[in-house]
Amino acid sequence: MEAATKELQEKGRAAKAASRKLAFLSTETKNKALLNIAEALIDKKDEILAANKIDYEEAKASGMSEAMLDRLMLSSSRLEAMAQDVRTVAALPDPVGEMFDMRTLPNGLQIGKKRVPLGVIGAIYESRPNVTIDISSLCLKSGNAVILRGGREAINSNTALARAAQEACYQAGVPQGAIQLIESTERALVNQMLKMKGTIDLIIPRGGAGLIKLVSENAAMPVVTGGIGVCHTYVDKSADLNKAVAIAYNAKVQRPTVCNALDCLLVHSQVAQAYLPSIAEEWAKAGVEMHCDERATAILEPVPSLRLVPAADEDWGKEFLSLRAAIKVVDSLDEALEHIETYGSGHSEAIITEDYSAAMRFLDEVDAACVYANASTRFTDGSQFGLGAEIGISTQKFHARGPMALREITSYKWVILGNGQTRP
Amino acid sequence: MEAATKELQEKGRAAKAASRKLAFLSTETKNKALLNIAEALIDKKDEILAANKIDYEEAKASGMSEAMLDRLMLSSSRLEAMAQDVRTVAALPDPVGEMFDMRTLPNGLQIGKKRVPLGVIGAIYESRPNVTIDISSLCLKSGNAVILRGGREAINSNTALARAAQEACYQAGVPQGAIQLIESTERALVNQMLKMKGTIDLIIPRGGAGLIKLVSENAAMPVVTGGIGVCHTYVDKSADLNKAVAIAYNAKVQRPTVCNALDCLLVHSQVAQAYLPSIAEEWAKAGVEMHCDERATAILEPVPSLRLVPAADEDWGKEFLSLRAAIKVVDSLDEALEHIETYGSGHSEAIITEDYSAAMRFLDEVDAACVYANASTRFTDGSQFGLGAEIGISTQKFHARGPMALREITSYKWVILGNGQTRP
Repeated sequence: MEAATKELQEKGRAAKAASRKLAFLSTETKNKALLNIAEALIDKKDEILAANKIDYEEAKASGMSEAMLDRLMLSSSRLEAMAQDVRTVAALPDPVGEMFDMRTLPNGLQIGKKRVPLGVIGAIYESRPNVTIDISSLCLKSGNAVILRGGREAINSNTALARAAQEACYQAGVPQGAIQLIESTERALVNQMLKMKGTIDLIIPRGGAGLIKLVSENAAMPVVTGGIGVCHTYVDKSADLNKAVAIAYNAKVQRPTVCNALDCLLVHSQVAQAYLPSIAEEWAKAGVEMHCDERATAILEPVPSLRLVPAADEDWGKEFLSLRAAIKVVDSLDEALEHIETYGSGHSEAIITEDYSAAMRFLDEVDAACVYANASTRFTDGSQFGLGAEIGISTQKFHARGPMALREITSYKWVILGNGQTRP
Repeated sequence: MEAATKELQEKGRAAKAASRKLAFLSTETKNKALLNIAEALIDKKDEILAANKIDYEEAKASGMSEAMLDRLMLSSSRLEAMAQDVRTVAALPDPVGEMFDMRTLPNGLQIGKKRVPLGVIGAIYESRPNVTIDISSLCLKSGNAVILRGGREAINSNTALARAAQEACYQAGVPQGAIQLIESTERALVNQMLKMKGTIDLIIPRGGAGLIKLVSENAAMPVVTGGIGVCHTYVDKSADLNKAVAIAYNAKVQRPTVCNALDCLLVHSQVAQAYLPSIAEEWAKAGVEMHCDERATAILEPVPSLRLVPAADEDWGKEFLSLRAAIKVVDSLDEALEHIETYGSGHSEAIITEDYSAAMRFLDEVDAACVYANASTRFTDGSQFGLGAEIGISTQKFHARGPMALREITSYKWVILGNGQTRP
């Protein structure tokens, strides 16, 4: 344990020292480093896949689930996709140095803001080794140093990936220490890392609800939490029902395992009879299990070949992350808003309606990172929103909300250009 | 203690409930409420001054210092100034509802951000009763509910002020519960308040270093810390020495008790002989005591009527908050930058120079909320920066940095307007 603590502290100091230089690194050097990393992922494929194989075999032997094993596994095509993501980050505009809100005050002072890196970002994550490269490349582009703490089950993969990235970017002229991977797998290190205020400027947990809770309750420095999405789609009495079928289908089925997928469908009682059988038939073809309240059950029971389950109390406010959905019939927009206020997680919420005032009320009154009228909640994503990449999705209101890209992991300084001004 | 805990919890719930309605309050109602508050401060003058007299007498009897007593004392003219500040807030643009970063994506989705309140802001502050009205009016204008926890020495003043404000704004149609003052003076309540994550969305401590440390180390919710300013002014070898005298004089003398006042003067050795006697003579007239390093002492000792003290180690990095300043002679811009990196508090730092490259390097490399070329650090202030008002000055990089005004106590939501879009 003592050696592990020492490793953490040394890497913390190295990251902090590197962060001071990273802030002034040219865009050209950063992009060159990113392209080098992309190349290294391909060139060092054999090494990386061999390391991954060790993790994979050990995890399999220890009885890891198929779904988790799939998340852990790397392959040539997955490395190619990771390399492509790094090239995408290289092509994005550099956020550092951007000047904004500039103006001249009556006394002649020219005053404005200049975007600067946050400093050192700590990332604590589970299983998926591609996060090592994802977060490293976003931090590098935004001029932040990074301290990575991946899961113990992926330690060989993460070590191989981080070493490839470190070598590739230091060759391009990035200061030593910019990317740090904690190689010790001692559990207690996470708690030590969470106390390193002054060294780590921001902590980003990526993983399940347990990890996010642990980090947000114990971190001494700012945390960006998110990733938990209990998402509702409300089909209003004035909805275009064809659009409502297409959107609810997409929101549930297109990728059911992610945070912006639909969890609960709310349907106005005036259109429930006309709408529910159509969406239920489509969902049934995709294998969706429907947890229905009494009124939805009454409407859907006569429809053949559906997988219906009576909704239990815990189905409201549940993030299913699978081909399951809750369905509830409501009598008004107000009832839908109330349900979302009670059970939503502040991630992504949608209304389907052709009624202008209903849409406006929903967009105004729902308190969530992303509020939609007539579109699928699956769009909540940095790259779908045109931000190019994302380091996470924030469901907090402080600092940044919703998809967080490069700009969201920066700060700013006020720059004041005078010619002798003094305060009267 | 039980009763105090109950009061805190009930007021927390009431503030939370009010915050949901406050978010939708019209600008007109908010402004009417603010003007009502301004009026009430004048109309209820006798009541408020009588309550303040109780606090003042008790504080005096308990041996409070003259400076602290002065901060505690209210008067007709101070109430008039407070009312004027509230009218200023009424005249500022409403930050809530502002739409920004709007654009249309290739798939036709219209996407952008809408500014929303943070929710419930907790304020923990010491002695000055005007903070009760300051923070209440800024929170009201930005659609946030507020829970106020003032110092026990000002409890009667704060209670009278908060009641006047509450009555005035509820009459204008502001939802009950928007402004909450904790009337119990139990010390342990502060720690309880810091644990009310989920009820309080942001904590702002206003007071001395001890309070700020306590809050930032123990709060479960986000905190904006600041208010500690160790400010340097560096006179470069290419400085216009007349400007350098005027600026350093203003930065130290115009109001020495505040966070943006000069604490340490760094002077390039090539101009130290020409510059130091001029500024020292001016400072001496204003009563400034100078804590000099050896080289500055050697230059200043021959000058008559100065208050010179040999600088001790603890003078570097010290926030004097009084008519004292540290003086150090340096041999280069690099040495000045290094000194500021070691001893600055990330608040406000200035360079005086006519050398373009030196100015640019200083502005780029100094890591502080506000970096100045050729102007007094005394300008670091919401109202001087043209923001109209300020709730505090942040020295952290997360969320907001530097003077925090109305916009800085808001968040945003992503609004997405579709016409049936689904994710491919």
